[in-house]
Amino acid sequence: MAKSSRIARRARRSGEFELIRRFVSGWPLGEEVVIGAGDDASAVRWADDSGRLLLQTADLLVENVHFRKGWGSSYQLGWKSLAVNLSDIAAMGGRPLHAHLNLALPTTWSEAEIMQFRQGFFDLAEKYRVALLGGDLSASPGPLMISVMLTGAVAADRVLRRSGAHSGDVVWVSGSLGDAAAGLKLLKKGSAGRNTSGGEKELMMAFLQPNPEIELGLVCSESRAVSALIDLSDGLAGDLGHILEMSGVGAVLDEERLPMSRALLGEARRRDWDHLEMAWRGGEDYRLLGCSPPDKFSEFASSVAERLERPLIAIGEISEGAGLRLRCRDGKIKAIAPRAFDHFA
Amino acid sequence: MAKSSRIARRARRSGEFELIRRFVSGWPLGEEVVIGAGDDASAVRWADDSGRLLLQTADLLVENVHFRKGWGSSYQLGWKSLAVNLSDIAAMGGRPLHAHLNLALPTTWSEAEIMQFRQGFFDLAEKYRVALLGGDLSASPGPLMISVMLTGAVAADRVLRRSGAHSGDVVWVSGSLGDAAAGLKLLKKGSAGRNTSGGEKELMMAFLQPNPEIELGLVCSESRAVSALIDLSDGLAGDLGHILEMSGVGAVLDEERLPMSRALLGEARRRDWDHLEMAWRGGEDYRLLGCSPPDKFSEFASSVAERLERPLIAIGEISEGAGLRLRCRDGKIKAIAPRAFDHFA
Repeated sequence: MAKSSRIARRARRSGEFELIRRFVSGWPLGEEVVIGAGDDASAVRWADDSGRLLLQTADLLVENVHFRKGWGSSYQLGWKSLAVNLSDIAAMGGRPLHAHLNLALPTTWSEAEIMQFRQGFFDLAEKYRVALLGGDLSASPGPLMISVMLTGAVAADRVLRRSGAHSGDVVWVSGSLGDAAAGLKLLKKGSAGRNTSGGEKELMMAFLQPNPEIELGLVCSESRAVSALIDLSDGLAGDLGHILEMSGVGAVLDEERLPMSRALLGEARRRDWDHLEMAWRGGEDYRLLGCSPPDKFSEFASSVAERLERPLIAIGEISEGAGLRLRCRDGKIKAIAPRAFDHFA
Repeated sequence: MAKSSRIARRARRSGEFELIRRFVSGWPLGEEVVIGAGDDASAVRWADDSGRLLLQTADLLVENVHFRKGWGSSYQLGWKSLAVNLSDIAAMGGRPLHAHLNLALPTTWSEAEIMQFRQGFFDLAEKYRVALLGGDLSASPGPLMISVMLTGAVAADRVLRRSGAHSGDVVWVSGSLGDAAAGLKLLKKGSAGRNTSGGEKELMMAFLQPNPEIELGLVCSESRAVSALIDLSDGLAGDLGHILEMSGVGAVLDEERLPMSRALLGEARRRDWDHLEMAWRGGEDYRLLGCSPPDKFSEFASSVAERLERPLIAIGEISEGAGLRLRCRDGKIKAIAPRAFDHFA
């Protein structure tokens, strides 16, 4: 890609959130709308008496922006197209229901590749009993474009927003950070298909075929021990930034508590990468990032460990003052801009 | 566009319905799914006791496939992006509710154009109290791509499918046919912006800024006088073909009853176009095409004329044998292939 177009794209991307804000502001929302644009999914009261909210989310994957042909299989791309939407439903504490899919198909993708794409989408859908109910198919004179819409359901008094964090809350994540960003870096270098190590494969897999945290989202929703929840798509700094902005609080995180995989640390050492930057800014991990009242966190984490056999990792706490700060290993505290992840930076 | 790519696209398009069929078959549908893929929208039972179905539809508009930059204004494109989805909800007899929008934006579209697009989308949304609740925004390294998802609601015992037509039913349409196809033909010839006549403007407007038939769809749903309903997006032959296939019946239409606007007839005479072919195959009219039991049609049509101040035009009747036939002006009957509209044929 030419540098000028990369710069244009970056400039466009830096204005993305502002453009979205202008686009989605000013719509008259009916009384049934509980959550409009700005969270992981929208939420609508469907029948007054059911107490059940309809969640809706929609995500877009564009060839040569979010992925390149040949980085992974068509199967993995189909899987990921649904996974990123499932992750949004997980981040609301919801149970996924039904999908619709719009595909713009260039002639460079064969019918066999499209059917492999379907199989990846299908296998993940089957895992969570999500049915594909419709959509649209078109030719594309440019890139492959995948647009997925997913519905879900959650009890009205159990929906988890980005806006509920309070001063003193424990900030936690559900797994290691930065793996997907490291995997993307390897894929961009053309590492796929070569003589790859186990660690490299693990990192590329984190980017190519993420596992959405549906079960954990449901446990969070049932627990009443989670004050705010989001999925990690824009990177820790960016996504925690969303929680802080919508909750009107700040946070202090501990550098030494940020969880990183052995694969990431190994590759970072070998290739002289800044692993901390990757953990901090790397997007598309699709882990959950949550906040919990300090008196509830440890019991909640034990219950998650017991039910799902995985740890929640406390990485810091919510503070009263605005802003995001990092407590470094040397004890110094530094401010961090909550800048979001840029695929092509 | 190079001829080879046009041929490739046409070949792809002719396989579109088959590919969709393979893509959407085999999904395990839960008991709550009343209508899966294959109608104008899907329908899901939301709460057992509410008797209200959730309708969902999703449509895709791709630059240089469905539209070209400069054919109309960005405002009209925003309007149309919502209109084609509203039309699907109308064809189920539903009331529209909420929209989500995914946009892949090339750098060739300015922020001002995108905000004009928003205004067109907004103005039509406001007319039907549809709120935009979310979506996704991405850069596009190719064309502008617009993916809209729309929900709606309809009472479970009032939903209108494609599958309910019976032998003897009157086949009717809600307005003139072929105007949008004629408008598209004019736009392709570069007629926009020149010294255009009133008739030319009317035809181009039919393509650029269609009016979805939400009110009529609601009246159809209330009436219990409509056995099958679809919106005209693929053209009369294609869309009636969908009804016939899903209802397991055939139809005979009368050439002399196919309604055509004075604008279409005038331009066709002037330019030596086959106006009948346009009425028959021309897509994107977004009128409703319905079937009604013969003993109910005339009272129903009167009630529509009274309530909405517009006529329903009977154009033929459903027959027992399969297939679509046209009774020509000379009395001869000829078989018609229910081929769908191709934007770039």
